[in-house]
Amino acid sequence: MTDSGDSFFVDYCFSAGSQSEAEDKASGIAVEQSAELPVETVPRHLLDYVGTVEELQEQEEAGNRWKAKIFFKKEIVSGDTVQFLNVVFGNVSIKPGVQVTGLDPGFLSTLFSGPNHGIDGIRERLSAPKRPLSCTALKPIGSSSEELARIATEFAGGGIDIIKDDHGLANQSLADFKSRVQSCVPAIRDAENLSGKKTLYFPNITGTFRELTERAEFAAQHGADGFLISPQLTGLYSVSELAAMFPDMPIMAHPAFSGPYTIHKHSGFAPSVYFGMLWRALGADCVIYPNAGGRFSYHVDECNEINRMCRSNDLQMKRSFPVPAGGIDRNSLQKWMDEYGADTLFLIGGSLYKHPKGLTVAAREFQTKLSEYE
Amino acid sequence: MTDSGDSFFVDYCFSAGSQSEAEDKASGIAVEQSAELPVETVPRHLLDYVGTVEELQEQEEAGNRWKAKIFFKKEIVSGDTVQFLNVVFGNVSIKPGVQVTGLDPGFLSTLFSGPNHGIDGIRERLSAPKRPLSCTALKPIGSSSEELARIATEFAGGGIDIIKDDHGLANQSLADFKSRVQSCVPAIRDAENLSGKKTLYFPNITGTFRELTERAEFAAQHGADGFLISPQLTGLYSVSELAAMFPDMPIMAHPAFSGPYTIHKHSGFAPSVYFGMLWRALGADCVIYPNAGGRFSYHVDECNEINRMCRSNDLQMKRSFPVPAGGIDRNSLQKWMDEYGADTLFLIGGSLYKHPKGLTVAAREFQTKLSEYE
Repeated sequence: MTDSGDSFFVDYCFSAGSQSEAEDKASGIAVEQSAELPVETVPRHLLDYVGTVEELQEQEEAGNRWKAKIFFKKEIVSGDTVQFLNVVFGNVSIKPGVQVTGLDPGFLSTLFSGPNHGIDGIRERLSAPKRPLSCTALKPIGSSSEELARIATEFAGGGIDIIKDDHGLANQSLADFKSRVQSCVPAIRDAENLSGKKTLYFPNITGTFRELTERAEFAAQHGADGFLISPQLTGLYSVSELAAMFPDMPIMAHPAFSGPYTIHKHSGFAPSVYFGMLWRALGADCVIYPNAGGRFSYHVDECNEINRMCRSNDLQMKRSFPVPAGGIDRNSLQKWMDEYGADTLFLIGGSLYKHPKGLTVAAREFQTKLSEYE
Repeated sequence: MTDSGDSFFVDYCFSAGSQSEAEDKASGIAVEQSAELPVETVPRHLLDYVGTVEELQEQEEAGNRWKAKIFFKKEIVSGDTVQFLNVVFGNVSIKPGVQVTGLDPGFLSTLFSGPNHGIDGIRERLSAPKRPLSCTALKPIGSSSEELARIATEFAGGGIDIIKDDHGLANQSLADFKSRVQSCVPAIRDAENLSGKKTLYFPNITGTFRELTERAEFAAQHGADGFLISPQLTGLYSVSELAAMFPDMPIMAHPAFSGPYTIHKHSGFAPSVYFGMLWRALGADCVIYPNAGGRFSYHVDECNEINRMCRSNDLQMKRSFPVPAGGIDRNSLQKWMDEYGADTLFLIGGSLYKHPKGLTVAAREFQTKLSEYE
């Protein structure tokens, strides 16, 4: 689908007991997200800016759930990505039982730039054109920069593809940001000589926007290979801002603090829309999401749908690597590879740390398994 | 309560069918929000940084709900407000049925500065030491700057206390930010001469952080009296950042895009904690929340609890004005004044626009009603 016309659509699902209640609710959403005034008080020449319900249908698979396709004038967004989010889900986020189930791919593709690197760009950096990729995290909080660098050495020695900081490593006195980057980057570069392959390091970039950009600048200047950021903690626009300011640095987005938008069956965003469309559109090259069967609650169908949207050609932008995470057992990797396919970046943390033979062996086994796809 | 010791607490409520399941879940939260590793893999000298469950009790009023008080070392936050949010609710936000029901007021008071003005400061600007205050919004989207200024003139002519932009007015070509501020500020100043009283104007400051600070700077330089911002769209830290950068400008915070954190009975944050503690701590002088009985879903008890926390002396910082909004009928004002008391800022939009005698009369009646408290 390509961008056309002066309007864009948002798909909403909501609860209603009858056709007429559904019509009222759909109109209510259209008004709430645009004029935010009783329609009778909107001056006639401005009625054109009120959202319009174009399709309304009962969902067969779910009792009393309805789906509406609502169109809004592009002028009320005027190219402003933050205002776009407000039109999509600003006030209606406060109404129980309303879920955003679809965004206009054509409009997203004109409004957002998407990933700078995407699946192909990350693969190129790792000289890994076909197989799934591996990722792990430096932990636990409280470790010194030297301890984290030692862990990084062990993982990189086993040839892991990407090492990211734990998203809880900020700028604590225990392992401040600068010393962490300055310890981990050379440790990983040294270990690459041993492993004979590339390992990318993505330090966790967090803080207020000013801190965020300072740390990103420091990381870029000191040899880090990309950024880990938690968009819902640092502001969703921080992804697109960092992508624009540091186009050479791939971005991996972490779901910390984002749960409320995606874990409720009937409100927030459909997970595939939030992770696979919105985060991809914002510029996340790698999209971490809570995998089925781990410590969190997604069903495998939802995960497959996230994967599909991350890789979909519906959006006219580079594809994002889906990154299932959150309790993947290293011994279940074959199952997840079979389920999700090659264009997947597997993030395994705790299960590697538990390997009885240590982190280097754990990483090497991880890589060996993934290499079966080559 | 004052800040003391090397730890702070967070209260969580969650579901569990038995004491032992509750113990497991509470420990799970404590680990997830700190080490994020299986405890057996945490080096012994770092176990001190793993959160600890200090109190665990079943909630009598709710079936199978338990409350845990979990303590975390202050070092894992190290004075970083974004990392604080991550420790409080980062990964655990993705777990169904977990709600943050309390934050450590002593720690909040050391970590955050709170409002620069608060209830007393806003009252002073309006020379209104006792009565409840009034607020309305400039709407609808699509209006030109001149049309919005005309509406502002009418409201200010009726003596309303605060006029804010609709939170959907960003920087659209229809009424771009600069022309809007430059039209509305002088319109309101002129109308003050007619009404004989002060009316404050809070334009909506939105966009990426860079746009946000540029617009805030412009607004401050061109006579605006404060800012409206939507923290969940612009990043929660945008409140504290703007408060620090523009200490003379009061901040009114709008709940757009925040619903998922507060509308679920058993997940996210208790509304009073989110609005009354967190937003206040971040520096919101005025906290807009969706009032009971309007277009949204809160119960009046929850609203009273938000009001209580906004005004509580438990936090060692200025008090925030609670701002009930979202469908208050002008004819129900007496009821809400009786319910919420004088330290309340009432935001009424649509119901004023519907007044058959126009906006100036609507505003004047609003003020007359509030003046009964003097």
